[in-house]
Amino acid sequence: MSLSAKIVTLLSNISGSSFVFTDEETRKNYGHDETEDYNFPPNVVVKPATVEEVSAIMKLANEHKIPVTPIGARTGLSGGALSIYGGIGLSMERFNTIINIDEQNLQVIVEPGVITQVLKDAVAEKGLFYPVDPSSMGSCWIGGNIAENSGGARAVKYGVTKDYVLNLEVVLPTGEIIWTGANTLKNSTGYNLTQLMVGSEGTLGIITKIVLKLIPKVNYNVLMLVPFYKSEQACEAVSAIFRAGIVPSALEFMERDAIDWTMKYVDGVSVVIKDEIQAHLLIEVDGNYTEVLFQEAEKITEVLEQFEIDEVLFADSEDQKNALWKLRRAVGEAVKSNSVYKEEDTVVPRYELPTLLKGVKDAGDKYGFKTICYGHAGDGNLHINIVKGNMIDENWITEVPKGIIEIFELTVRLKGTLSGEHGIGYVQKDFMPLAFSKMELELMKGIKRLFDPNNIMNPGKILPNS
Amino acid sequence: MSLSAKIVTLLSNISGSSFVFTDEETRKNYGHDETEDYNFPPNVVVKPATVEEVSAIMKLANEHKIPVTPIGARTGLSGGALSIYGGIGLSMERFNTIINIDEQNLQVIVEPGVITQVLKDAVAEKGLFYPVDPSSMGSCWIGGNIAENSGGARAVKYGVTKDYVLNLEVVLPTGEIIWTGANTLKNSTGYNLTQLMVGSEGTLGIITKIVLKLIPKVNYNVLMLVPFYKSEQACEAVSAIFRAGIVPSALEFMERDAIDWTMKYVDGVSVVIKDEIQAHLLIEVDGNYTEVLFQEAEKITEVLEQFEIDEVLFADSEDQKNALWKLRRAVGEAVKSNSVYKEEDTVVPRYELPTLLKGVKDAGDKYGFKTICYGHAGDGNLHINIVKGNMIDENWITEVPKGIIEIFELTVRLKGTLSGEHGIGYVQKDFMPLAFSKMELELMKGIKRLFDPNNIMNPGKILPNS
Repeated sequence: MSLSAKIVTLLSNISGSSFVFTDEETRKNYGHDETEDYNFPPNVVVKPATVEEVSAIMKLANEHKIPVTPIGARTGLSGGALSIYGGIGLSMERFNTIINIDEQNLQVIVEPGVITQVLKDAVAEKGLFYPVDPSSMGSCWIGGNIAENSGGARAVKYGVTKDYVLNLEVVLPTGEIIWTGANTLKNSTGYNLTQLMVGSEGTLGIITKIVLKLIPKVNYNVLMLVPFYKSEQACEAVSAIFRAGIVPSALEFMERDAIDWTMKYVDGVSVVIKDEIQAHLLIEVDGNYTEVLFQEAEKITEVLEQFEIDEVLFADSEDQKNALWKLRRAVGEAVKSNSVYKEEDTVVPRYELPTLLKGVKDAGDKYGFKTICYGHAGDGNLHINIVKGNMIDENWITEVPKGIIEIFELTVRLKGTLSGEHGIGYVQKDFMPLAFSKMELELMKGIKRLFDPNNIMNPGKILPNS
Repeated sequence: MSLSAKIVTLLSNISGSSFVFTDEETRKNYGHDETEDYNFPPNVVVKPATVEEVSAIMKLANEHKIPVTPIGARTGLSGGALSIYGGIGLSMERFNTIINIDEQNLQVIVEPGVITQVLKDAVAEKGLFYPVDPSSMGSCWIGGNIAENSGGARAVKYGVTKDYVLNLEVVLPTGEIIWTGANTLKNSTGYNLTQLMVGSEGTLGIITKIVLKLIPKVNYNVLMLVPFYKSEQACEAVSAIFRAGIVPSALEFMERDAIDWTMKYVDGVSVVIKDEIQAHLLIEVDGNYTEVLFQEAEKITEVLEQFEIDEVLFADSEDQKNALWKLRRAVGEAVKSNSVYKEEDTVVPRYELPTLLKGVKDAGDKYGFKTICYGHAGDGNLHINIVKGNMIDENWITEVPKGIIEIFELTVRLKGTLSGEHGIGYVQKDFMPLAFSKMELELMKGIKRLFDPNNIMNPGKILPNS
């Protein structure tokens, strides 16, 4: 009997088994995310609807040592949802309910398969705010955000996913169901299993319920686009704004090429840029008092005057704001549509950004590749798109990895690390020894063994094989 | 040879061995913290000054299976620093340097033995803000704050210790030295060892260097003391303030008795309170724009008008603010100076506070004990001081624990947990099965075994024996 047939037979005894799929189209469809052009179809796709079904599936898989890969919206950028060893692809799409928006406690209980934007809109209707906003928020799911500890543009002021997760219901690889903590803002009760689960990329268990902290809605913002004649000065300005005592709600960096490529790709967004401009900062401040926002915007422009900038564009309508955000959020897709590419998600202390940016360009010059850089400069999180363009295949395969290693080595020297918000997943795991010592990796492997003794839960992710 | 003599002989071969103490006075002095009246002296007190010395001590202790208890400022309230099995008491007092205040990146690198207030003052001099403010901040150390994941009054707006810890240098029980993460604001690179260490109460390793996030200084605040005729309405008002869209920088609850007892204990603080007043809220808003603060204070008073309150006292000078904060911060000590007592550190979703408070009083009535309640109402964190007063010893020993169990059971039913900021340590560990399932505790025990296979690192803390 084939593995697929065996799995189907095993699953046939549990409730929800009408949601088991083995056709090639479904398998292929669930075999990819947004990571380069990889496709690793599972042998079987299963779509449970209850925690009991997930538990039953995990028990079977654990007993028969069948790999299980949790699959979310497949918007991931590190290959976390790829079934690289086949087995069961466990789609969470039927866990798509917002269970309770608790207006008294400013919390929400939500299932993992809810689209992040849907969640944001639902709580906003109650005057509440879930601030985390990955660029893919219109399609990604909250469960995947937790698995990857996703960030986004507003992280600089409001933090990343981990800062909002209070408690998680998790099905362990053995099928046991646990809660990781309590629904409280503070917690000093035992080891922090909640934060161990956040960012564990589906390798320690399957998240089935999520309790998130919310905050009161914020009503106003001011958005400005600032053109810099020198990329490195744009990076320097980021740190200067904080030193002036301002915490912007977004502080995004885009290289010239990032904007040019994206304007070609996105309809209805057009900004006139002088030839000499090398980079832009997109800066937002938000709050409930418009007079304060104008004061802060003015303080920021004072700080910016120290640098060589062109005229600042203040967005004067919601439409213009949306257009500028659309431009920023579409950079990744725009690059992708233009060329084969690899994306790195480096993060450093924010003042080190100019050094990192220079190092990236130097590595490109040395190994013959072009990079398009953009990202969340306020957090020191630089997305580096390495585009293949017309580089020959051999160099793409042999030279680019050398350059990536040098970029990561620099990142670590600057006290940064490999991924700020995309996760390690499948594509970055072999670089982990650049960031962690043998002992540090051994601890992580020990945690993996503790939760998943048979290594069935999203195997082949995060940790290097050797 | 006695254990003490054996330890001294072992330690004599490593650098720093002139800082080994076996005299009874020193041992006794390092055998207590602020938890009730416990004293568990270690056999030997050792005061290393470098990470290499700590590593050498841990290697020896691990090889010879000698318990090691890390000792900080001994201000803890759950007995985390008690050498309950004797062995080595490892004082971190010589790790008392602020290594670098990084004004470019808004970070500080600090050793664990620095007093929290000293750290706060040092960064404030550079225009920066470390907001975490446990009531003991004038004497506790930053290392202990991380071990216990300490909170404080400003947690309601600014978060707790865990929200500021970016990276930790840790000596493992085996003597290996690791870093847990990177010096970055975002990090999706492997399992979150940093947050596993925060709040682990010295049971997984010894923290030797700490990288903390800082934020820009906040310049102004408004502080008001609000007398409520009914305790439960004070708790209800807390939730109402948030629902009005305001995030105060502090929102503290004090029962009538808490204030009365404390005014007797603290010099120079006097507030006239009508007989009928049952509780107070101490409410602070902060920010950089005074006009906004006045608007927020006004909004808060509008919310408060729904409740039965007496006249609001606005602190009109720095002296008066300091006096009110002194009053609030001294409650714990005041209760302690008045009677034998036990302190619980319950935390619930904030809207559940009135229910919790009522349950505490009911348990007291049922089992014959008096409680004085106060704490960080904005976070749902209620400190419950159970005072012995003239209760007979037998009831203190037999009846009070029954009441505590009922209080904790209620807390957990309300989706809360045992400790919000004091930790579990020695005194609460046997209550852990009230908050966690067998499987959840097994995972925690597994983590403990992974880090500390010989169970030498602060043994007998957090996890129940059975």
